[in-house]
Amino acid sequence: MPSQIFEQRESAVRSYCRNFTDVFTKGKNDLLYGESGKEYIDFFAGAGALNYGHSNPFIKQKVLDYIAGDNISHALDMHTAAKAEFLEKFQEKILKPRNLDYKIMFPGPTGTNANEAAFKLARKVKKRANIFAFMGAFHGQTLGSLAATSDWTMRAGANISLGGVVFMPFPEGFMATIDTIGYIESVLTDDHSGIEKPAAIVLEAVQGEGGLNVAPIEWLQKLEKLCRKHDIMLILDEVQVGCGRTGTFFAFERAKISPDIVTLSKSIGGYGFPMALTLIKPEYDIFKPGEHNGTFRGNQVAFVAAAAALDFRETYDFDGETNKKAKILKEYIEANILSINKNLKHKGIGLIQGVDFTGIADVNQTTSKVVKECFANGLILERAGREDCVVKCMPPLTIEEKTLLKGLEILKNAIKKVLA
Amino acid sequence: MPSQIFEQRESAVRSYCRNFTDVFTKGKNDLLYGESGKEYIDFFAGAGALNYGHSNPFIKQKVLDYIAGDNISHALDMHTAAKAEFLEKFQEKILKPRNLDYKIMFPGPTGTNANEAAFKLARKVKKRANIFAFMGAFHGQTLGSLAATSDWTMRAGANISLGGVVFMPFPEGFMATIDTIGYIESVLTDDHSGIEKPAAIVLEAVQGEGGLNVAPIEWLQKLEKLCRKHDIMLILDEVQVGCGRTGTFFAFERAKISPDIVTLSKSIGGYGFPMALTLIKPEYDIFKPGEHNGTFRGNQVAFVAAAAALDFRETYDFDGETNKKAKILKEYIEANILSINKNLKHKGIGLIQGVDFTGIADVNQTTSKVVKECFANGLILERAGREDCVVKCMPPLTIEEKTLLKGLEILKNAIKKVLA
Amino acid sequence: MPSQIFEQRESAVRSYCRNFTDVFTKGKNDLLYGESGKEYIDFFAGAGALNYGHSNPFIKQKVLDYIAGDNISHALDMHTAAKAEFLEKFQEKILKPRNLDYKIMFPGPTGTNANEAAFKLARKVKKRANIFAFMGAFHGQTLGSLAATSDWTMRAGANISLGGVVFMPFPEGFMATIDTIGYIESVLTDDHSGIEKPAAIVLEAVQGEGGLNVAPIEWLQKLEKLCRKHDIMLILDEVQVGCGRTGTFFAFERAKISPDIVTLSKSIGGYGFPMALTLIKPEYDIFKPGEHNGTFRGNQVAFVAAAAALDFRETYDFDGETNKKAKILKEYIEANILSINKNLKHKGIGLIQGVDFTGIADVNQTTSKVVKECFANGLILERAGREDCVVKCMPPLTIEEKTLLKGLEILKNAIKKVLA
Amino acid sequence: MPSQIFEQRESAVRSYCRNFTDVFTKGKNDLLYGESGKEYIDFFAGAGALNYGHSNPFIKQKVLDYIAGDNISHALDMHTAAKAEFLEKFQEKILKPRNLDYKIMFPGPTGTNANEAAFKLARKVKKRANIFAFMGAFHGQTLGSLAATSDWTMRAGANISLGGVVFMPFPEGFMATIDTIGYIESVLTDDHSGIEKPAAIVLEAVQGEGGLNVAPIEWLQKLEKLCRKHDIMLILDEVQVGCGRTGTFFAFERAKISPDIVTLSKSIGGYGFPMALTLIKPEYDIFKPGEHNGTFRGNQVAFVAAAAALDFRETYDFDGETNKKAKILKEYIEANILSINKNLKHKGIGLIQGVDFTGIADVNQTTSKVVKECFANGLILERAGREDCVVKCMPPLTIEEKTLLKGLEILKNAIKKVLA
Repeated sequence: MPSQIFEQRESAVRSYCRNFTDVFTKGKNDLLYGESGKEYIDFFAGAGALNYGHSNPFIKQKVLDYIAGDNISHALDMHTAAKAEFLEKFQEKILKPRNLDYKIMFPGPTGTNANEAAFKLARKVKKRANIFAFMGAFHGQTLGSLAATSDWTMRAGANISLGGVVFMPFPEGFMATIDTIGYIESVLTDDHSGIEKPAAIVLEAVQGEGGLNVAPIEWLQKLEKLCRKHDIMLILDEVQVGCGRTGTFFAFERAKISPDIVTLSKSIGGYGFPMALTLIKPEYDIFKPGEHNGTFRGNQVAFVAAAAALDFRETYDFDGETNKKAKILKEYIEANILSINKNLKHKGIGLIQGVDFTGIADVNQTTSKVVKECFANGLILERAGREDCVVKCMPPLTIEEKTLLKGLEILKNAIKKVLA
Repeated sequence: MPSQIFEQRESAVRSYCRNFTDVFTKGKNDLLYGESGKEYIDFFAGAGALNYGHSNPFIKQKVLDYIAGDNISHALDMHTAAKAEFLEKFQEKILKPRNLDYKIMFPGPTGTNANEAAFKLARKVKKRANIFAFMGAFHGQTLGSLAATSDWTMRAGANISLGGVVFMPFPEGFMATIDTIGYIESVLTDDHSGIEKPAAIVLEAVQGEGGLNVAPIEWLQKLEKLCRKHDIMLILDEVQVGCGRTGTFFAFERAKISPDIVTLSKSIGGYGFPMALTLIKPEYDIFKPGEHNGTFRGNQVAFVAAAAALDFRETYDFDGETNKKAKILKEYIEANILSINKNLKHKGIGLIQGVDFTGIADVNQTTSKVVKECFANGLILERAGREDCVVKCMPPLTIEEKTLLKGLEILKNAIKKVLA
Repeated sequence: MPSQIFEQRESAVRSYCRNFTDVFTKGKNDLLYGESGKEYIDFFAGAGALNYGHSNPFIKQKVLDYIAGDNISHALDMHTAAKAEFLEKFQEKILKPRNLDYKIMFPGPTGTNANEAAFKLARKVKKRANIFAFMGAFHGQTLGSLAATSDWTMRAGANISLGGVVFMPFPEGFMATIDTIGYIESVLTDDHSGIEKPAAIVLEAVQGEGGLNVAPIEWLQKLEKLCRKHDIMLILDEVQVGCGRTGTFFAFERAKISPDIVTLSKSIGGYGFPMALTLIKPEYDIFKPGEHNGTFRGNQVAFVAAAAALDFRETYDFDGETNKKAKILKEYIEANILSINKNLKHKGIGLIQGVDFTGIADVNQTTSKVVKECFANGLILERAGREDCVVKCMPPLTIEEKTLLKGLEILKNAIKKVLA
Repeated sequence: MPSQIFEQRESAVRSYCRNFTDVFTKGKNDLLYGESGKEYIDFFAGAGALNYGHSNPFIKQKVLDYIAGDNISHALDMHTAAKAEFLEKFQEKILKPRNLDYKIMFPGPTGTNANEAAFKLARKVKKRANIFAFMGAFHGQTLGSLAATSDWTMRAGANISLGGVVFMPFPEGFMATIDTIGYIESVLTDDHSGIEKPAAIVLEAVQGEGGLNVAPIEWLQKLEKLCRKHDIMLILDEVQVGCGRTGTFFAFERAKISPDIVTLSKSIGGYGFPMALTLIKPEYDIFKPGEHNGTFRGNQVAFVAAAAALDFRETYDFDGETNKKAKILKEYIEANILSINKNLKHKGIGLIQGVDFTGIADVNQTTSKVVKECFANGLILERAGREDCVVKCMPPLTIEEKTLLKGLEILKNAIKKVLA
């Protein structure tokens, strides 16, 4: 039985395997299969890296053809035919229709690397060391990104002081009761605030790890105005909520704002392949050649899958379907789950929604039980938020409606059972 | 013509494409092909990520079969059959025969991420913030690793102060004239050295980016002793020189030392696929679950390629062949190239060797011309070292002898022409 | 004329001399005398170091006798008779009547040094690196204190990043419109606030440099409760507002709170002599011998003057007189000055009060003109606050009523003239 | 008995009082008197603050007259007659005869504050954050200076990371066996040294706290050349070894170098009064008014004593006498003390000399016993250096020869007894 090898050889840092105690073998769209033969509905989607489903056949065929043809697999930042195709498609299908003009940087193939590149660049452009991030934010685990990540436990992992970032209040929890934009403006204009003007403000339009906190449209617009007024760059981290997750390709589209830098990763690679982008307004594209680099910034197979994913999006009304399923998900939670306990609250937008258990006793323990009960009944999902208060539904965007409803029923029953 | 799109859309940070001005399409073992139809000998090997050659057929078949079978492509740190197979093979074929006992951590799939994890862990284990790195070192570009990277230009890219690392002299250049081990020992024992005792000392057994500087065997052994005596962890960064590059799987094997942490990336993914490992002595495997994480730490296709690569190594006398070719390379440089100019020096070991131009006027310009001349004649190679003084021969380990010699002849003629 | 030497030899960093353009020779209680023979009313009191007036005769005699008797002038932290006398008087006259129990540390003889010692100690006690300071705060100019000083211009003087301190909102200006205590509590309890729990919270009960901002009594009490609840040390910086300035010996007495550490300097030396104290609750007195030191921590002449000042305070109803004059000052401002312009506001408490020009055009220029006009008419005073918006009346506590009123009339006329 | 109050009220941080267990009352030139009536020879001189002896009658009279005349005691950085007189005398008697041209800054009245100002200024002038200090260095205890202080125990007192300073090898101990200037030059020129070019290099021409390590003249000259070549400012910290301690007013005069910034404190105040100076070459005098300030930067009584001390130096052949006594001291140690044990070594220069016990078992314990034995026999002196290996003779420069010899005899006998 292969699972002994994990106990024997894999580091104690492994995490998800502790809740999802099977050995997984195959994946097919919205379903996962374990060695045991068991089938699981996937409300987790590779933490957002599998928006197009497991083993998407459209993308798979392109990948197989590319590899079979002895096409180049790894090319650092040399020019390749695969990269050219991706760039053209990204321009035609994503940037142009949205009237966006970005230079595209390929950093190391992870979200954290895309953010590290963004922070370096912003500091270089504005010649200021400081960056504002938000309470509730998650931007990655390498030191530069970790400095902008708000979770105490993760920060403590650095075992060294994390500098260069100041946290501002996000309109969530207690902070939603104050004028957060006014607060930031006061910090920026009060010559005794003690806080240095930042090069950039970085945020997720919908905080994922922080608890599916949706930034209000008006708030995003005010924040953009503040940035313009004070000559501060606006960075949108779309690593988790980009690539269609909220019903539009970028989560910030909702607010019609125009970030100076956008970071993408996770589902951009189409098939779960490591890939990341840092999008930069042309006037800020001032890195010198190689000033930020990395061996795997030219993962060609990912470029092929990424280009295929952009084609796949056009094979049907992709965003329309996402929004339709998002509505089903929202209505199901509101109609069938919130009624279980008056403290339960709905969180999120698009196909990143969840149930907030804040206010219920032993919130962390309770949500943990819910997740385990779901798993036992064939549903994989995870938690987010303060004290892991939110049980999170983040299926592939390609999930079938009936599977979505089946998963929701498992979730409903699990919550009922645990809160009984 | 696809290349316009790069000018139009790709960030100015792109780098290698400026020297290697073709659009690449296919790769076959030691050869690369451009859109133009031109064939290039590859002395670059994806900066060390393609030790098994381009499109290695043995590995390719395993990858194609895996993808075709709808096997799971991305699984974070859940248990999977593909990961189990890799772990078992790594244990049986790499650790066991070398009597090594490491827990295996899968960080984000890049070398820099493997090092960030190593530094976090060492700081946690020893409860000390400081780390010693060496002059000449390269450990990555995210902030935690960049702090341990010695190159001024790269460091300046941070645009923020880099802390937590103190640089020690490596026995190279001026520093080779002093007792570097004595220097480090003095720093560690002098209660007025001003330098805090480190959690770990990190090094490359052969500095790549720093100029192919081979740490003497006795020096490595003394350094290990120093670490043991002063309760300091020893971290070997084998990202570039591991995976057989120096003629043994690990570059440190040469000195028979026993690092506490080893980082691997680049060629570990077998086919140029992003993957990285942080190997940890069991007694130091104290991360809490998820304390360092990352979306792409479960790149299953890379696990499949990685396992296949371990099998491939056994299909013939892999290390023996590397050493044989290393000898050819060394002898060719000594016999045919050093004679061109008395300032030229040989550098390196295994299949990471080169020619050092230090002492020749305008060293940076000169080596740049050599590289361009080589490219014009169908050879791809890069530079390393102070002021890019070393022209570096780092072909796939699978290169055929005749291709190796053909490439060397191109190099010899280029140097002759440039220095004429 | 001696003043040429200043232009010729003194650094451009000199500051007050630019507004107060005389060469001063003698001082007598509330009056200063220039080389020119001109007499000035002193509403500045050596920035708070001369609460007992210039050349206080009571203190002077003790100092003269001490020096004349060849008593030791400088003794580092050796035991001396002069120090013993000061300690005993401080215990009997200050601590005991207030039921306060502090160990007394003599740091270097400046306020900033007292704060540096306080911060070191708090970090040691709680084993946490972080400290919370407040927007508007001033704690000194050496790097450790400067990190807790909020003024942008002063911070920029460091020319290096300042770490280890996070700024919280003080109930002043925009921040008075939000629940600042709630804000701090949220930061302390939200596991995604991104802000590490501090070892201590440091504040001035009345912010001086920040603009004479009086912390409300209830706010101070809530803050103390917050500290107790979250195991955070409370540090009161009484460098400027201690020693009777607000009508009680400590400015925090007003709120009946019990700080863990209190720093004193400025007027503690009695006669304008450099001296500073760091008061520490006995349970936190854990410095090792010499762990924080400094050559002038045993300025014996200052100890003599300091002890004499404590005696002097008892020669009449010292605090009663301060409060009486504070009332006169407040009433004068409210009755005769605020009426000049509707934007003028009263600020402060005790004998640290002033007029806030916020809302008046070119506030910085305007207050600068007022100060210059006052000086031309024989009154010395300074400015504080955001954009130097507050003209500050901080006379010796021993000022005579008629001098106080005479000074106020000069101020009133100056404001009238400037705002005309 | 007054000493109970210390136990009861003074912080545990007190240090010298633990070895010198009397309560001191009077001081007269080279002698100290305890409450017990006991007389002590002073080889400590207030850690270098009492070069002109205790209660120097020449200086005392000027101080008494000044205070008696109601002259201003404290004036921040306003112009005063006392400051003018000091500036003129410092110009005429110190700068002019040595052909030195410095602007004079009055920082807070402590050595650490003078250094903090120097570091701020250098970073501002060169727009570089980094500073090089030396192993063995002591520059103060506030955070900016502490970052440049090499002693581990003191650094640990910060309880926070200390940045912005890199330590270079000083030619002492093991480091004297390597080419330290070559080392620094390599660090400055190797583009892979990992170490950022500093704004300044700061040093003591004779390291005091580090163990009386005298920088060789040629080494100082090479270091100056290195600074010029690489556009780095040279800062000499003369806080302890300036003011005549080494036989010239500045300790750096010996090497005929020309520092860009010089810091002075300790004996500059003449009578043990807190005072400090930062001397700045005119072209670097670019602080804005008030950019570095401090309440006690205008300690007028210290200015009076400081000016008197400059006069006093001219009442006889001051430096000649120092050198004469230095010769006596050196010869006595060499002739009578080194012979006690072959491991004993002479250290120092001028009237800062001592005996190095390195190589003797339990060096720290041994020197501690020597100091205690001396105290029991009426001699006060202290230790310095690694593990407190050096017993230090640093009497007032005004010590009488017979007292010097008497003290040395006590020391000799103490060493004999302890090493017996």
